[in-house]
Amino acid sequence: MAHSNSMRVLPAACLILSMVILLIVNCTNKSAHSRICSEQKGKWSALLNRKAQHPLDPLTHSEMLAVQTLLRNTSLLGKERQVLHSVELEDPDKQEVLRWKPGQPIPTRHAEVILTIDGVPRKIVVDVGLGKIVEDTEIPGSGYPPISVDDFEKIMASPATYQPFLDSLAARGLKIDEVLCLPLSPGWYGVPEDENKRLTKLQCFVHKDTLNIYTRPIEGIVIVLDLTTMQVTRYIDSPANKAPIPKKDGTDYRFSAQTPPYFAALNPISIEQPLGPSFTLDGHVVKWANWEFHVRPHGRVGNIISQAKVDGRSVMYQGFLSELFVPYQTPEQGWYFRTYLDAGDYGLGIFSLPLQPLNDCPRHAQYMDAVFSGPDGAPYITPNMICIFERYAGDIAWQHAEVLGNEKIHEARAKVTLVVRMIASLGNYDYIVDWEFQTDGVVRVKVGATGVLMIKATDMTSVDANVTKDELDDMRGTLISENTIGVIHDHFLAFHMDLDVDGPNNSFVQGKFVRYSEPPEVSPRRSYWAVEKHVAKTEEEARIQFSLDHPSEFYVVNPGKKTRLGNQVSYRVVPGTSISSLLDPRSSPQTRAAFTNNQMWITQYNRTEKYAAGFLTSQSHGDDGLAVWSNRNRNIEDTDITLWYILGFHHVPCQEDFPVMPTAEASFEIKPTNFFERNPILKMQPNH
Amino acid sequence: MAHSNSMRVLPAACLILSMVILLIVNCTNKSAHSRICSEQKGKWSALLNRKAQHPLDPLTHSEMLAVQTLLRNTSLLGKERQVLHSVELEDPDKQEVLRWKPGQPIPTRHAEVILTIDGVPRKIVVDVGLGKIVEDTEIPGSGYPPISVDDFEKIMASPATYQPFLDSLAARGLKIDEVLCLPLSPGWYGVPEDENKRLTKLQCFVHKDTLNIYTRPIEGIVIVLDLTTMQVTRYIDSPANKAPIPKKDGTDYRFSAQTPPYFAALNPISIEQPLGPSFTLDGHVVKWANWEFHVRPHGRVGNIISQAKVDGRSVMYQGFLSELFVPYQTPEQGWYFRTYLDAGDYGLGIFSLPLQPLNDCPRHAQYMDAVFSGPDGAPYITPNMICIFERYAGDIAWQHAEVLGNEKIHEARAKVTLVVRMIASLGNYDYIVDWEFQTDGVVRVKVGATGVLMIKATDMTSVDANVTKDELDDMRGTLISENTIGVIHDHFLAFHMDLDVDGPNNSFVQGKFVRYSEPPEVSPRRSYWAVEKHVAKTEEEARIQFSLDHPSEFYVVNPGKKTRLGNQVSYRVVPGTSISSLLDPRSSPQTRAAFTNNQMWITQYNRTEKYAAGFLTSQSHGDDGLAVWSNRNRNIEDTDITLWYILGFHHVPCQEDFPVMPTAEASFEIKPTNFFERNPILKMQPNH
Repeated sequence: MAHSNSMRVLPAACLILSMVILLIVNCTNKSAHSRICSEQKGKWSALLNRKAQHPLDPLTHSEMLAVQTLLRNTSLLGKERQVLHSVELEDPDKQEVLRWKPGQPIPTRHAEVILTIDGVPRKIVVDVGLGKIVEDTEIPGSGYPPISVDDFEKIMASPATYQPFLDSLAARGLKIDEVLCLPLSPGWYGVPEDENKRLTKLQCFVHKDTLNIYTRPIEGIVIVLDLTTMQVTRYIDSPANKAPIPKKDGTDYRFSAQTPPYFAALNPISIEQPLGPSFTLDGHVVKWANWEFHVRPHGRVGNIISQAKVDGRSVMYQGFLSELFVPYQTPEQGWYFRTYLDAGDYGLGIFSLPLQPLNDCPRHAQYMDAVFSGPDGAPYITPNMICIFERYAGDIAWQHAEVLGNEKIHEARAKVTLVVRMIASLGNYDYIVDWEFQTDGVVRVKVGATGVLMIKATDMTSVDANVTKDELDDMRGTLISENTIGVIHDHFLAFHMDLDVDGPNNSFVQGKFVRYSEPPEVSPRRSYWAVEKHVAKTEEEARIQFSLDHPSEFYVVNPGKKTRLGNQVSYRVVPGTSISSLLDPRSSPQTRAAFTNNQMWITQYNRTEKYAAGFLTSQSHGDDGLAVWSNRNRNIEDTDITLWYILGFHHVPCQEDFPVMPTAEASFEIKPTNFFERNPILKMQPNH
Repeated sequence: MAHSNSMRVLPAACLILSMVILLIVNCTNKSAHSRICSEQKGKWSALLNRKAQHPLDPLTHSEMLAVQTLLRNTSLLGKERQVLHSVELEDPDKQEVLRWKPGQPIPTRHAEVILTIDGVPRKIVVDVGLGKIVEDTEIPGSGYPPISVDDFEKIMASPATYQPFLDSLAARGLKIDEVLCLPLSPGWYGVPEDENKRLTKLQCFVHKDTLNIYTRPIEGIVIVLDLTTMQVTRYIDSPANKAPIPKKDGTDYRFSAQTPPYFAALNPISIEQPLGPSFTLDGHVVKWANWEFHVRPHGRVGNIISQAKVDGRSVMYQGFLSELFVPYQTPEQGWYFRTYLDAGDYGLGIFSLPLQPLNDCPRHAQYMDAVFSGPDGAPYITPNMICIFERYAGDIAWQHAEVLGNEKIHEARAKVTLVVRMIASLGNYDYIVDWEFQTDGVVRVKVGATGVLMIKATDMTSVDANVTKDELDDMRGTLISENTIGVIHDHFLAFHMDLDVDGPNNSFVQGKFVRYSEPPEVSPRRSYWAVEKHVAKTEEEARIQFSLDHPSEFYVVNPGKKTRLGNQVSYRVVPGTSISSLLDPRSSPQTRAAFTNNQMWITQYNRTEKYAAGFLTSQSHGDDGLAVWSNRNRNIEDTDITLWYILGFHHVPCQEDFPVMPTAEASFEIKPTNFFERNPILKMQPNH
């Protein structure tokens, strides 16, 4: 089936390579997605005709088309050296959103358009209703916008015509049509040759014979490409590192490529809901049990949860995965710069693929489609980008059992939660991001990391026999297959949590656990501990590094609200997996990702402070972002504040991670603490 | 239905009070359990006739009867001042168990009997086959065995005849039949009046009008009872603390006691397995997917997982929750001593109640019954003490998606795991202990804490109006209802993990993450980190305190086994929720629970070193247990070693915890790390 122009789900003339994960909804294709497509025709037309119903609804297909027309008419699109990076809803004024009630006309819609014109990043704001540009500014600072789909086209063409690269390939017995080069964000290291140019560094892989290209890197070659001129500005074929291409054997992870014996088949198992799910999805508004919230896809951060309320009381104005930082830990030429800021350098939503029913999300999941802007401003659809489902895992919401006299008491409640999931497939890595809403008021944010490791080739096939200590040290990782090193790296994920606990004005309270002593005449008990609460007055007082030896609890309180007993209404942050950065604090990757200096931060709410490593991250110098904002040291007491939680894990690869990694999980929670008057799920019904 | 003597599921003449959680299988009773009982008659007879099939199978009903007969015949039971605490299988010699193969005759069975005779703890070992006592020794050290069911009877009788207590009740307008007193383990504080006596301290509650007695304490009264003489040795009715009894309103958590409106009813949801579960349970041996292990109920530690193997390769010889430490954090007279060692002071298995299908465990769970010894040596049954089920929670085992040229790849595998669950209902608290086996080789140990808080009564009804700073400080907790304080406390849970990674001889390796730097001429990258591995040679080198600033990974390696690539075969410990103790290290509760000095320990394997706070914990002085054993500083390199993981959480109560607490979870994992040659679930099949 051919799509009409207005449907336009296929971005124009874009070369699809692995890192350009734009879905082509191709209903003639026999893939799983084509089935979704043909089954859901009605849904497409509904999506294409949808109007915004809520101030935070993402730009609709027709709004995107209107923006595209305007950009074309004003000659901001379609010319040489004009690159369109993104078209997104500009966050409306928070007060306006808070005042808005369902049924009322929604406030003026603004589109935020990010362009690069002649290498200069520019932000244009379009009043979508009026069809008018209301802002057009160069974006200050050192960074550049992400590589756009438009860039990819030209990037792909470059190596094929660059003779030294062809020579390098020939020397390795390879042809250009057997390789694929991926544009890596180059970080920033003050290397004189790379200054003041918008760049990418290409890493090339042998594509021939396997689809798992990451396992077959051509080690030692780095192509530095100027993204404005599309010229190779530097070319490195390090003679010192001509490791062989790792073999294709055992690299394919697809089930179709496996041979028996298969893994012991388990009997079918599924989460079943004979009467269907208990939540409703109306546009972008989800209602379930005691929860209500808005969820929308977003090109940069994947998705945004907004206006989350429990029992009608505000918990969070907006929450999203603001930025990632993934530094690889080896100083060599082809690797030292790999210190990705994935959301800003690539885009979590743009790099999401449709979720696969039954494997990515359980049977009764509902799916939400995303509309993003292609490189020419035309909208395209990523179907099933987000799934929403009820989760029952055999867990227990609360329980008590005892025998009292003749009375046996056994009260238990099964735990059912609601999950909002998206998966960003950023090249090799896949990040599963779950927002899990519990009936007891807890929100759990869980990240699963899976996918394929970034591989460094080596001439080693074993660490056993003739390998020296120096060679072992130089691996900077683990030999996970023959000629294949999984390089050590970290994952830091910064969550932007604009909590509005029972209203926008909140304070941040650190409850420090302090040891007390009593003299023997007072009590035989020599020591015990108590909580000393400190209200953070300014941003500096709320830069939190977790410590086992100096434990604390962390509360976002509403100083204007108390329970009937006089306790301050609050949500508590329950830390989960956290790490601290091991990089030199003065080094450029650490400065650029300075949000990893602490595990938690509080800033005064500011509509423009959304992205933890700054608005433009590619090649940024660290002049924007959470650490810079926090340095303003603004008041954060009894005002609108934003909490930033930095989740993270160190990753020393192992053979189990090859050729595809079992999911590693990390999470944290926010938990109502004297928010409710009593256990909010006391009156939940047991199962029979 | 009356039970025959031989069935004997009802312990003789035991007064059932809330902390004596012995199940009476009463088939005339209309409770849920009676249904289980009548449905499962065949099962009872099977259980009663069962013979041990595996060296680690728990003592059978008939073995227990044989032990009882022997004890009676040798006059060790049935006389004054003879108290029977437990009859359990004595751990057979590990080498013997490892040599044993299914089908072979099982090695000689020994029963370990713990008695107190004239206040002196005594251990008797019975050769069950020969019907002969092979060991009879006084147990050295300062501690006493747990309060036995026999004790409870007499303890219950004591307050009713103690006039000062009756006077105190009268002064409060209460009658003896309206109250219930629970025997608390008294800790040890060197109080001269309490020395050299086996004691309990009674805390009394108003039982009238609510089943949630914990919410209605009679504050200020402490009855110190000598358990040998059953005389009150001290009586305290503190005039300074005559807080009112908190009201009954809102304390009942049973669904039958609630009134509308109820919590929003969700549509039915369940984990369904149309072809039934994929695991088999043969006696005590579980086989599922790539896993095989033995599980048995245990009176003291709840349950024990033994000989866990994945792909037929050994991972863990034995794993169990060895001890808990729950110190309450207030120095006042009625509270300072509440520093429970729950496993040793009470017994996690003894205090387990039958699991409730559909609420405690999902639909297709299978259940295992326990046979424990009653106070007269007669065995009784706790049905459904353990459940085993497959868990599918909508999670993803591994995933990768991308678009490569014309090829769309989307491979995802649903994550299914196997859970072994027990719930110890230790008076007010319920601990849900899950051992979760994953197909990727990970074992996750998860603890959920729920139930009812231990309450301190207060005359405060609000912390708002006229409350002074001193009064607030004196609360040592949170006002969670009118006149009701939830007292601050900690939970430490020590897991005994006798890992045998691919064989019994293992070493413990700490991989310290260390920052490296390079001069500018080597790399633009200023810093990165790498792993420096240290093999712990002695126990002292393996006392681990986690630190965010000095991160490490922790491996139990098999120095004799390497992968094909030469990597050392290992399992890694992935820490989860951990805390450090805030108590003065020289104080008696900390010395008695010195296993909380570190978050992880390694000791040389020793069959008798099972319980982290020592063999006898009640009133112990800290002369036995993990810290003492570690001080021997034995060799732990390339030998049989045991890992101890101390999981923990601080608990500052909040109103949401009243009148019953939503489950709080904590966990840690062990994870195969170069144990497999590649991702062990690569060949798992996708769902369709």
